[in-house]
Amino acid sequence: MAMPTDSSDARAVGEAVDPTRLEHDLALLATLGARDDGGVARLALDANDIRARLWLAEQAESLGASASVDAIGNVFLDLPGRDPTLAPVVTGSHLDSQPAGGRYDGALGVLAGLEALRALRDAGLSLRRPLSLVSWTNEEGARFAPGTSGSAVFCGVRDLNETRAIRDAAGTSLGSALDECLAALDAAGIPRRPLATPMHAFLELHIEQGPILEQARVPVGVVEGIQGVSWFEVTVTGSANHAGTTPRALRRDALEGACALAASLREAARDDADQVRFTIGTFEVSPGAVNTIPERVTFSIDLRHPDPATLDALTASFQLLAGQSWAGCQATLTPLSRIAPVAFSLPLVTLLDDTAHDLSLAAPRLMSGAFHDAIHLAGHCPTAMLFVPCHNGLSHHPDEYTELDDAVAGTRLLAASLARLCA
Amino acid sequence: MAMPTDSSDARAVGEAVDPTRLEHDLALLATLGARDDGGVARLALDANDIRARLWLAEQAESLGASASVDAIGNVFLDLPGRDPTLAPVVTGSHLDSQPAGGRYDGALGVLAGLEALRALRDAGLSLRRPLSLVSWTNEEGARFAPGTSGSAVFCGVRDLNETRAIRDAAGTSLGSALDECLAALDAAGIPRRPLATPMHAFLELHIEQGPILEQARVPVGVVEGIQGVSWFEVTVTGSANHAGTTPRALRRDALEGACALAASLREAARDDADQVRFTIGTFEVSPGAVNTIPERVTFSIDLRHPDPATLDALTASFQLLAGQSWAGCQATLTPLSRIAPVAFSLPLVTLLDDTAHDLSLAAPRLMSGAFHDAIHLAGHCPTAMLFVPCHNGLSHHPDEYTELDDAVAGTRLLAASLARLCA
Repeated sequence: MAMPTDSSDARAVGEAVDPTRLEHDLALLATLGARDDGGVARLALDANDIRARLWLAEQAESLGASASVDAIGNVFLDLPGRDPTLAPVVTGSHLDSQPAGGRYDGALGVLAGLEALRALRDAGLSLRRPLSLVSWTNEEGARFAPGTSGSAVFCGVRDLNETRAIRDAAGTSLGSALDECLAALDAAGIPRRPLATPMHAFLELHIEQGPILEQARVPVGVVEGIQGVSWFEVTVTGSANHAGTTPRALRRDALEGACALAASLREAARDDADQVRFTIGTFEVSPGAVNTIPERVTFSIDLRHPDPATLDALTASFQLLAGQSWAGCQATLTPLSRIAPVAFSLPLVTLLDDTAHDLSLAAPRLMSGAFHDAIHLAGHCPTAMLFVPCHNGLSHHPDEYTELDDAVAGTRLLAASLARLCA
Repeated sequence: MAMPTDSSDARAVGEAVDPTRLEHDLALLATLGARDDGGVARLALDANDIRARLWLAEQAESLGASASVDAIGNVFLDLPGRDPTLAPVVTGSHLDSQPAGGRYDGALGVLAGLEALRALRDAGLSLRRPLSLVSWTNEEGARFAPGTSGSAVFCGVRDLNETRAIRDAAGTSLGSALDECLAALDAAGIPRRPLATPMHAFLELHIEQGPILEQARVPVGVVEGIQGVSWFEVTVTGSANHAGTTPRALRRDALEGACALAASLREAARDDADQVRFTIGTFEVSPGAVNTIPERVTFSIDLRHPDPATLDALTASFQLLAGQSWAGCQATLTPLSRIAPVAFSLPLVTLLDDTAHDLSLAAPRLMSGAFHDAIHLAGHCPTAMLFVPCHNGLSHHPDEYTELDDAVAGTRLLAASLARLCA
């Protein structure tokens, strides 16, 4: 059998993807934690999340794969390659959801990977490299914050014991919930595997959680990286006075100043390419009485861009603006947090471009505005992602929805790309 | 003895005002409800407010006046005039304070009136008209809302029984607190008097509760009227989306729209004369998360001006602005309440101007930005007010402060003006 390095093999693997199987798996998984409103509540390491892992591990047998679980609960299905000395190609995402989540965020990436493994089997391709499917633990962080626990601990970005010590709102530690999960997998005969094992490449398929692909009417996008994000807190301080008795000339109105500063910051962040994401999401006014001139306004800035130099330049211009006087008020801008942008592997992104071309799929490049497990994997091995559209960009919501045709197109591109990487 | 219609008599009455007596009374009254921080908590109809009334009634004897109380608890000290058929000239203010109030708001107007009566006696002037001092019940509304109960019921603007039914936070009705107060005055032998008795004129001295006189470095101001006030609620509706994944071109950011609309409304209200008072005091953002584009902003407008036509014109221009699209968002502007401006009696204001001139007092005219009992009296008889400066415009605060020199200047002008009105 020929190695799937040519376009016809890529197409054959893509065509072996079965929409019916994928649709069935999506419906089945949505029953684990089903909400009355059609959404899914499958919180990390809860009973439904454990059942989902057991179900996933059960799929190994029919694929000729072996299931295993690591110390943070990440479940792997490993398909052997002809050369067992080579590091595996890995795909996957996460099975946990938000409390009022949908059927696609995370789950689609795991199920697309599962269907890709089936397609490779059905296309009769022999793999030189091993190929693994993974489901990462607690990506959402909805029950145990922060999220991306499984990928972060696997990649050595976070400490296992510190992560085990995180508690949910009921006081349960992630560690004790994890031990229950591991005990259930032990009972099912799933062996343990080490953390931080080498990988040749990691590919994650996910819903976009934004409107770009739907607006562009394309079925799939190639993700070049994950935007960096800086959070700031801005405080504008004026002086409180009686709304009825204080002439305009004697006012130092913090709300007037804050609106003007907010408009100037927004203008400074405006770029023709529409790549900067600038959001003021919170805006608190003190004392907050109808007939009192505001003394203080505190607002947040969420700033994102793929290029760290642009984030630096915008931060500097924001500081200059905050240093001016706004309606007679003083302002301060305090950086709260910063996560550096991640650029995915260019060879891998190029391979995805080429494979999309071979499959005659329109697959524009885009940046991820949200975080994913892939952010940690990018420091571990060459990494990239595929996005499929989601309706109205809606996610973390029971109405989250991706057309089956788009999910299938993304899965075809994933399967064909995995075949190329394993060849 | 000559009637005090000429300038020399006005000066004589003014000079008879005794700073030491006024200072003593201010200190004495501040002990009734004294707070540890130097402020005063003398809530309407509480034990201290009742003691303050009894103290005031006791002052009648040395003045040759008679004390009386009406059905809403307003205490009067009446000095007879030579012609008992004439309606009296009346001055006064209120003795109740805010819970964390100061020594001057209300109290100074009563004590200045008391000192004016003493000055008239000491100057040896014979009055043709009767002259009364009044302390109105529950001006503040801090315990029983709304305030200005005594003046509103006296003038027939509000119903006595409805006012008696108002309850404080502890569930006590104004009526039962009032009955306790009236019983204490009964026990002291203070007779009852009817409501709505005719008045020739009403003059109220009060602290400005704003910065204008202090900034102008003048000791007193002649109040031409009370601004009208309109309250509005503005709602701006966009759509909530993920801050990281939604391009600027696809956003409808309610906070961006609200800041732009707020700036345009503020600009529309800007007048060269600096008479319009435009305040946005509350500004609520929903959902209010750092990484979510705001879906909805609701903010308040407090708009004040002496001229009803200007309020109408501004309201119309606000509605036009709200009808536009703001950053792709819809806005609505809803009128919540409106209180019409009150213009004080021009002859009375002119008499105050002239008397200030005779006393060589700089006394510019100004409008009141806050409400006072005088707003109801203005519908009952020719009414005007005098303001004295208060430091930094601070009021309703333990640090509320008026220089004794300014309090004395205001009292001299009040006394001389009362003498003229009674002549």
